[in-house]
Amino acid sequence: MSVTVVGSIAFDAVKTPFGERERMLGGSAVHFSLAAGFFGDVRVVGPVGDDFGDAEYAVLHEHGVNTDDIERVPGGRTFFWAGEYEYDLNTARTLDTQLNVFGDFAPKLSDASRAADTLFLANIQPDLQREVREQCGGVQIAALDSMNFWIESTRDSLLKTIAGVDMVLMNDAELRMLTEEPNLVKAAAAVRAIGPRVVIAKQGEYGAALFTEDGFFALPAYPLETVRDPTGAGDSFAGGLMGYLDSQGGNADDATLRRAMAYGSTLASFWVEEFGCERAERLTRDEIDERYEQFKRMTAIESVPAT
Amino acid sequence: MSVTVVGSIAFDAVKTPFGERERMLGGSAVHFSLAAGFFGDVRVVGPVGDDFGDAEYAVLHEHGVNTDDIERVPGGRTFFWAGEYEYDLNTARTLDTQLNVFGDFAPKLSDASRAADTLFLANIQPDLQREVREQCGGVQIAALDSMNFWIESTRDSLLKTIAGVDMVLMNDAELRMLTEEPNLVKAAAAVRAIGPRVVIAKQGEYGAALFTEDGFFALPAYPLETVRDPTGAGDSFAGGLMGYLDSQGGNADDATLRRAMAYGSTLASFWVEEFGCERAERLTRDEIDERYEQFKRMTAIESVPAT
Repeated sequence: MSVTVVGSIAFDAVKTPFGERERMLGGSAVHFSLAAGFFGDVRVVGPVGDDFGDAEYAVLHEHGVNTDDIERVPGGRTFFWAGEYEYDLNTARTLDTQLNVFGDFAPKLSDASRAADTLFLANIQPDLQREVREQCGGVQIAALDSMNFWIESTRDSLLKTIAGVDMVLMNDAELRMLTEEPNLVKAAAAVRAIGPRVVIAKQGEYGAALFTEDGFFALPAYPLETVRDPTGAGDSFAGGLMGYLDSQGGNADDATLRRAMAYGSTLASFWVEEFGCERAERLTRDEIDERYEQFKRMTAIESVPAT
Repeated sequence: MSVTVVGSIAFDAVKTPFGERERMLGGSAVHFSLAAGFFGDVRVVGPVGDDFGDAEYAVLHEHGVNTDDIERVPGGRTFFWAGEYEYDLNTARTLDTQLNVFGDFAPKLSDASRAADTLFLANIQPDLQREVREQCGGVQIAALDSMNFWIESTRDSLLKTIAGVDMVLMNDAELRMLTEEPNLVKAAAAVRAIGPRVVIAKQGEYGAALFTEDGFFALPAYPLETVRDPTGAGDSFAGGLMGYLDSQGGNADDATLRRAMAYGSTLASFWVEEFGCERAERLTRDEIDERYEQFKRMTAIESVPAT
């Protein structure tokens, strides 16, 4: 089994109340692939410039991420984002966006990437997402993320793209915006009516909720006393979730999806403890499994006694 | 075992995108006591005016709520609140507040109310909460709710009152405001450092989180396609929670607290399906237990298989 992810590869400048970094490895496809890499083979597809060097490749390679489909554009510069988080860490204020090579990105997938069992279309232009989806005819599970920008500017294309995937992972506010439905249960049902069998609403510090034909499931976020930088939380959540699903042989019944969400939340909890991918770089699968078990105990309701 | 609740008894005018009511039974002590009444004996303490009539008493009596300590002020009028909820139902806009008899409220507890095992100090002036707490020396569990208004205007008194109770149930935003700590885990720890053994953060549509010495627990809200009026959600949550705890003989270990939270969330989910107490008025314990069981299944993460 293997996962292919298509999305942004970036350098980020981030400032939070707990510190700042001027230039660190980032981008949705990077966060996703590092997280998914703990569960199996991952191939990352995205463009970089000349400034993307051996040190950056090394981080990906050390986590078993295959970088053959990273397209290096000669003379180009890598996507750059600068943002700042306020006191409560809930919303990022964008200070600078330089699309650079990402502005002309046309995904080119190798045969190996097209042959993946699991496909994740990170938050990019929905026409590109759909092209990639069409190139990967044999995937068992295809999932996508998107955001307010695409809902506003390319709504029809996004709806067409959503119709062609099995799972949608989006922020709850964006699911509401997309469907113009303030009730999340109805919003998820409206997205499922377009085609996807599974809708997962990311809820930031409140966790995530799962909607399928069989019903509803929700998980809080893993409680942390120290959150230093929320950048990459959503993408590492998606990476842990999709990586775990892929490791289960494409089984995506509700029980497997629930465990996958708990793994996703576990990965995201490590991510936000430090800046960018810094915590991820020295994370181990044992640490992940240990926190997963803790997390499961934290969310269990014991049976009511007979009294 | 029995529960005493002290708080507001009111008439509410409420408008939501799903309808409106010009004058319906409300107030935190009413919502709380109707919810707690499904689990055992409840006594409600609060003031009303001449306009509080047989019909209103009847709703309470039909749910087994003892109204002996409702103080009827001759010539007075009952507390009145008018509010409107916007499209997303998250925040109420207050249109009118008439304190009426509630403005001069000085709680007078009968011996029977003072002898309760479980005490809930609903959201009223913290000096009054503390006076009541001191009158009820023998309670096994005393809990309180509060709000931004008291944090801003009577902060020192509120902190003193919190020091004297076992449990605090407040909105997460208000716990953050009270402790000036944006991280909820730290905010809960700061409240526990003042005295209470248990802190429960109400998180509206996202559910609720529990903080004790032993750790953390969180529950999503029960998912509903139709929420018509969120008025009373927090108080019915508290009522279900405290009522269940009282029914367990004052046992408030973590397992019992988790079940109590699930009962609280279950009660709140019925409450918001209709206006005010309307759904509550014909609710049965069987319906509560059925939804509680459903809810438990909705939040269970199955064990990871051996693979």
